[in-house]
Amino acid sequence: MDITTVWEDLAWEQGGKIVYLILDGLGGLPDPEQGGTELQVAHTPHLDQLAQSSSCGLLEMVGPGITPGSGPGHLTLFGYDPLQYRIGRGVLAALGIGFDLKPGDIAARVNFATLDSAGKVCDRRAGRIATDDNQQICQRIREQVNLAVDYYFETVSEHRAVLVLRGTGLRGEIQDTDPQQTGRSPLPPKAQHPEAEQTAAHVGAFLEQVQRILNHEESANTILLRGFEQYQPLPSLVDRFKLRGICLADYPMYRGVSRLIGMDVPPPPGGLQGRFEGLKHHYGADYDFYFLHVKQSDSRGEDSDFEAKVAAIEAFDQLLPIALSLNPEVLVVASDHSTPATMGQHSWHPVPVLIHSPYVRADPVKHFDEFACLQGSLGQRPGLDLMGLALAHAGRLKKYGA
Amino acid sequence: MDITTVWEDLAWEQGGKIVYLILDGLGGLPDPEQGGTELQVAHTPHLDQLAQSSSCGLLEMVGPGITPGSGPGHLTLFGYDPLQYRIGRGVLAALGIGFDLKPGDIAARVNFATLDSAGKVCDRRAGRIATDDNQQICQRIREQVNLAVDYYFETVSEHRAVLVLRGTGLRGEIQDTDPQQTGRSPLPPKAQHPEAEQTAAHVGAFLEQVQRILNHEESANTILLRGFEQYQPLPSLVDRFKLRGICLADYPMYRGVSRLIGMDVPPPPGGLQGRFEGLKHHYGADYDFYFLHVKQSDSRGEDSDFEAKVAAIEAFDQLLPIALSLNPEVLVVASDHSTPATMGQHSWHPVPVLIHSPYVRADPVKHFDEFACLQGSLGQRPGLDLMGLALAHAGRLKKYGA
Repeated sequence: MDITTVWEDLAWEQGGKIVYLILDGLGGLPDPEQGGTELQVAHTPHLDQLAQSSSCGLLEMVGPGITPGSGPGHLTLFGYDPLQYRIGRGVLAALGIGFDLKPGDIAARVNFATLDSAGKVCDRRAGRIATDDNQQICQRIREQVNLAVDYYFETVSEHRAVLVLRGTGLRGEIQDTDPQQTGRSPLPPKAQHPEAEQTAAHVGAFLEQVQRILNHEESANTILLRGFEQYQPLPSLVDRFKLRGICLADYPMYRGVSRLIGMDVPPPPGGLQGRFEGLKHHYGADYDFYFLHVKQSDSRGEDSDFEAKVAAIEAFDQLLPIALSLNPEVLVVASDHSTPATMGQHSWHPVPVLIHSPYVRADPVKHFDEFACLQGSLGQRPGLDLMGLALAHAGRLKKYGA
Repeated sequence: MDITTVWEDLAWEQGGKIVYLILDGLGGLPDPEQGGTELQVAHTPHLDQLAQSSSCGLLEMVGPGITPGSGPGHLTLFGYDPLQYRIGRGVLAALGIGFDLKPGDIAARVNFATLDSAGKVCDRRAGRIATDDNQQICQRIREQVNLAVDYYFETVSEHRAVLVLRGTGLRGEIQDTDPQQTGRSPLPPKAQHPEAEQTAAHVGAFLEQVQRILNHEESANTILLRGFEQYQPLPSLVDRFKLRGICLADYPMYRGVSRLIGMDVPPPPGGLQGRFEGLKHHYGADYDFYFLHVKQSDSRGEDSDFEAKVAAIEAFDQLLPIALSLNPEVLVVASDHSTPATMGQHSWHPVPVLIHSPYVRADPVKHFDEFACLQGSLGQRPGLDLMGLALAHAGRLKKYGA
């Protein structure tokens, strides 16, 4: 039996508040030249002090050897088994711009891109065109393209947009048209399931009309589609765990995941300090669960910029006292996956985690990093465990059986 | 596949004896004023010496964040997944007084309680009436109440009793009548399943007649029912693991769980020393599995009495040499859940465990407590693992495959 359904049965409206501070891509690998991992090298006096009165450990997200994308990583943190709850990037991107998806809608991510004279992709991001230009092109497309089903074509930012198809009988099993590499031609929007043929035909008609409109553009002279998915809303945090949640994140992806599980997602506050102040501002009677997201630890890891990732961690540490001052019953510091700067990409390595509450078995871990946390009282365990532990420490789970 | 069914397939009659010494609610939390957890503070020379030649670790009972009741906690220790084998308090209470439940019987826990003049519950325990008074009232009820099905109404102790209904077509899905709080009226015995309507009617008729009998009582002027459950015996320890078991416990709940899985449950020996001597007395050819239960570690934890819990642990430690003198092939010291004195209730925190046998990978753990055991060779693992490890160390599991 799935343990998360036991948490659902035991959750009640009583108990304390839970604050999740999620540093995206936090886990790292030792860089011999730097003398340790990003977390080991970073100067983090507040995190370290917090660790000393917390339960520490390591979370293996999704499963051993699995490198999680941002969606599955966050779903795991929120207590949604990503092997059971699958969501595509298209759905996430649409949710992230606040698009009001309806059950059954098909969403896909769009990149404006550049084709060379031979029809091969030479820039998958069309020189990262300005968001303004993106908006103008989107408007032209909306004015000129006609389909047999309703569609929505919306700017995200820079070269990114979202396509949504709405109608009866649509299916999400459509192959990406994005070849993922330059020097190749875009792929056809092939149906990957017999019942998706009609949807593939709509996408084909869309692409044909769009191509005529973009042919004379200089950089954004084509679009690439990927991550087709049919939207089915997930059971909410309230339904499952009796948690009224709020998201403090500025990136569409994380706002999208949060909206998908029924959290409130207020307009993005400016910068990391703005988000910490937003946490303080919204902290109160209306919510039980607060999710604050830090993107820079992941972005700088993906840039292979060890020092910049260290700096991002240190910037977080400087703001941590704002969260501590709220004195929530449960404060969690964790991550959705590792992004070691030495690799420049997401990885499967477990991520450090700490839980702070009056009911923790505070352990001897004195520095919050990948190695010290091995000695922590949470041990090394599946990422999905975190939500159950957070609920328990907040007094939000009744006793099981008599 | 459920690993416990693999143990079932591999278990044979050969092998050594297994002794389980279970300190109820043993796990604790650090109390800053006391300088550690109950186990860290307790002076336990025999346990510590035993730990040095044992495999140590921590067990997470039922699942992460789950606070187990006594039933699920013990079932887990015995190798019965409590998410699969569910038993209610009513069934446990009936088994605990030695009542001979038949398959299909419906059992419920009973509290004698006090109603005020407005019909609201003002004391859920009727001032903890004397067991003698309880017995007299029960007898009057048995003499005067007539139902269309057979019923049994038996004293447990103080304000507690048990109701059993026996007949065809009965169902256990009946709502508690106990409102769980004072200042509220008792609830009706509502059917929570269409097929339980008839059973609910029998319970309603019973309550109506009982109320007429109790109306003139001073304190025990009503009864509250909870934990309705239909009795289905579980497969026994012999059936599953080829273990002939004996229980040395004095509390009904633990005697009930033991009976439920087919253990012999001799009359309760007096006191903890009596149980240890009972262990010695019964140790021999007739049994393979010995379960000795210590209640005081849990009771004193629930009292929030740190020092008394420490004393209960120390009293156990003093008697431990009696069990050691039997030199069983496998000696286990463990617990069904944590009951930190700082919380005064059951909790989800993992419990320390040790396995002593000639075949352990003895580890460097020198003191048996929640933190030292983190370094043990058993690691931190699900509580359900314990029975498989005990069987293996006793030589009671054949090789898997060729």
